[in-house]
Amino acid sequence: MADQYAQNPFGTERPMLPSLRWDEPPEGPVLVLLDQTRLPAEEVELVCTDVPALVGAIQTLAVRGAPLLGIAGAYGVALAAVRGFDVDEAVGLLENARPTAVNLGYGVRRAAAAYRTAVDRGADPEQAARTVLATAKKLHREDAEASVRMAAHGLALLDELLPGGSHRILTHCNTGALVSGGEGTAFAVALTAHRAGRLRRLWVDETRPLLQGARLTAYEAARNGMPYTLLTDNAAGSLFAAGEVDAVLIGADRIAADGSVANKVGSYPLAVLARYHHVPFIVVAPTTTVDLNTPDGASIEVEQRPGHEVTEVTAPQLAAARVSGGLPVAPLGTQAYNPAFDVTPSDLVTAIVTEQGALSPVTGGGIAELCARSRPSND
Amino acid sequence: MADQYAQNPFGTERPMLPSLRWDEPPEGPVLVLLDQTRLPAEEVELVCTDVPALVGAIQTLAVRGAPLLGIAGAYGVALAAVRGFDVDEAVGLLENARPTAVNLGYGVRRAAAAYRTAVDRGADPEQAARTVLATAKKLHREDAEASVRMAAHGLALLDELLPGGSHRILTHCNTGALVSGGEGTAFAVALTAHRAGRLRRLWVDETRPLLQGARLTAYEAARNGMPYTLLTDNAAGSLFAAGEVDAVLIGADRIAADGSVANKVGSYPLAVLARYHHVPFIVVAPTTTVDLNTPDGASIEVEQRPGHEVTEVTAPQLAAARVSGGLPVAPLGTQAYNPAFDVTPSDLVTAIVTEQGALSPVTGGGIAELCARSRPSND
Repeated sequence: MADQYAQNPFGTERPMLPSLRWDEPPEGPVLVLLDQTRLPAEEVELVCTDVPALVGAIQTLAVRGAPLLGIAGAYGVALAAVRGFDVDEAVGLLENARPTAVNLGYGVRRAAAAYRTAVDRGADPEQAARTVLATAKKLHREDAEASVRMAAHGLALLDELLPGGSHRILTHCNTGALVSGGEGTAFAVALTAHRAGRLRRLWVDETRPLLQGARLTAYEAARNGMPYTLLTDNAAGSLFAAGEVDAVLIGADRIAADGSVANKVGSYPLAVLARYHHVPFIVVAPTTTVDLNTPDGASIEVEQRPGHEVTEVTAPQLAAARVSGGLPVAPLGTQAYNPAFDVTPSDLVTAIVTEQGALSPVTGGGIAELCARSRPSND
Repeated sequence: MADQYAQNPFGTERPMLPSLRWDEPPEGPVLVLLDQTRLPAEEVELVCTDVPALVGAIQTLAVRGAPLLGIAGAYGVALAAVRGFDVDEAVGLLENARPTAVNLGYGVRRAAAAYRTAVDRGADPEQAARTVLATAKKLHREDAEASVRMAAHGLALLDELLPGGSHRILTHCNTGALVSGGEGTAFAVALTAHRAGRLRRLWVDETRPLLQGARLTAYEAARNGMPYTLLTDNAAGSLFAAGEVDAVLIGADRIAADGSVANKVGSYPLAVLARYHHVPFIVVAPTTTVDLNTPDGASIEVEQRPGHEVTEVTAPQLAAARVSGGLPVAPLGTQAYNPAFDVTPSDLVTAIVTEQGALSPVTGGGIAELCARSRPSND
């Protein structure tokens, strides 16, 4: 395993651009996104002046990650309202931009409800727009606060499950500041452990096909001076077998009422490996990720993405050069099976950590209770 | 899952160039290899006139796959002998070209032994060279025959384990004609099932980091008109969960005396998934893959390959353009954990299929018996 425990070459923290920010230049209000398709090669901001531009950014994954999609969705409704576009049309476009993440719909609906309530109460369009923007900013702030609380609850759980040690954590996909109004979900726990001097190693799954681990989690780990090592997704088995993984920490795109967890494809195999090796498998997600209208794992609609993501490889340099498509690696005409997510049943999940605390064991009753505690009564 | 059961676009069989051939043009004997780093974009042959060229081809994976490496190693010794180079030096270079595959050493030592025996019996260098070349050709032929027998035994086993059905087989890495003197190991079983009208689907793991599945297995499946679908390695979990996998068939790079199997990284997680889902996990390999001098899985040396295979992506087009290195996807300075192989303990292996028949359950005693039946007394 050579130098797997060597320090990373970056050493100390370097500040990151915000993944998303509302701005009001003289030309009019805009939503500014850090283009995640260009990372880590370049830090480029995308300026969205209308909802179709934002929907495009969501669909190309320039902005991604369940909690951040919720915030982006709410700001999208605000953008339409503030700029005087049709709010109902904006809501429809945003709700259908991607199917699996429940947060997107949650953020959009919460902003839309705030808008409608304001209008119903006799607000003029400008006042209603201010109300919906305030709601988006509140959601943004709540998500940042939720990150802080998830990180604290998550580290406490790790210390309880793995007493006295510094932790070797395996993670999948990207769950840091790039998916969040704050420092993220699973990644925020690892970062908090690092700041407390208790992160021995962050194992970063590269996360094919779009390589969010290699491109984004490695970028955030380097930026934060964390000890991290990248691996292909299929090398995780060797790490488990060698006893090199103390815990798996992942995020979630949707949690069903029975505690089933939809997350980036490759999460479920890690859950099976973790169970086989008696390693805790921990999901870190805000309660906004829970969808009580989805009764169980089988009811979760899993987005099927285009086959070319598998039959071609791409790199941020190609995106930067505006090369359309990637480099083919498979024979032309090869068909691919490319689900964006998989579903892990609750019995393979050691704990779900939310801003309201950790739930373990994971049960439908426990999920309902967490949600009852967390849902805001109104804005 | 969209069109996962659609026919492949190629339909019928198209002949492939041989993966390796001995040739004797007027300039002198050569070993000609199909350059596997350029597939599937281009079919380019590499002509090796000496052993260092062959060692280079082995190390860059232009030629790869356990059985084929054994054949290449034997021809390498023959090439040195026929061209009048130092045979002992050639043997040393070839034996150490790559560490994990036992077949390479087996082929080299068998050819070297034939050479030394001939010399000891008073053969002149030319006669000894002819003897070692005959040994290499015999090994080549034996491997082709072993493929045919493994395919027949493997299909019989599938029919026994999964009576009456057409099979949905998941495979990893490349185990076809590109690794063999014949049609391969695990792939040959799938191909035989296809010809018998009993292959419903070949699920092809892309096999990061070098994408032997996407590049080579998909190429062979397309060439042979097989119904196949490509997936990222981490999407296999979803297929198991959906009940879409009837059996896993893989090859082996080394089998220890206790039946532990070293194979391409990503094999062990499939074995754990297969066990969890009660799906047969079948290893197909010639008895030359067994190393009785390696007592158990823990004694198998696993090759650690360079980190840039993980931190960069590459494609056959880049190899063809002689672009050195790939396109970086991770931040500069990112370190990677990149084992070439992993080890699956025998209790996770449903059966090992060899040219001598299928062994199930897999035990040390059974392995010893298979080997006793198969080892040639002499050349």
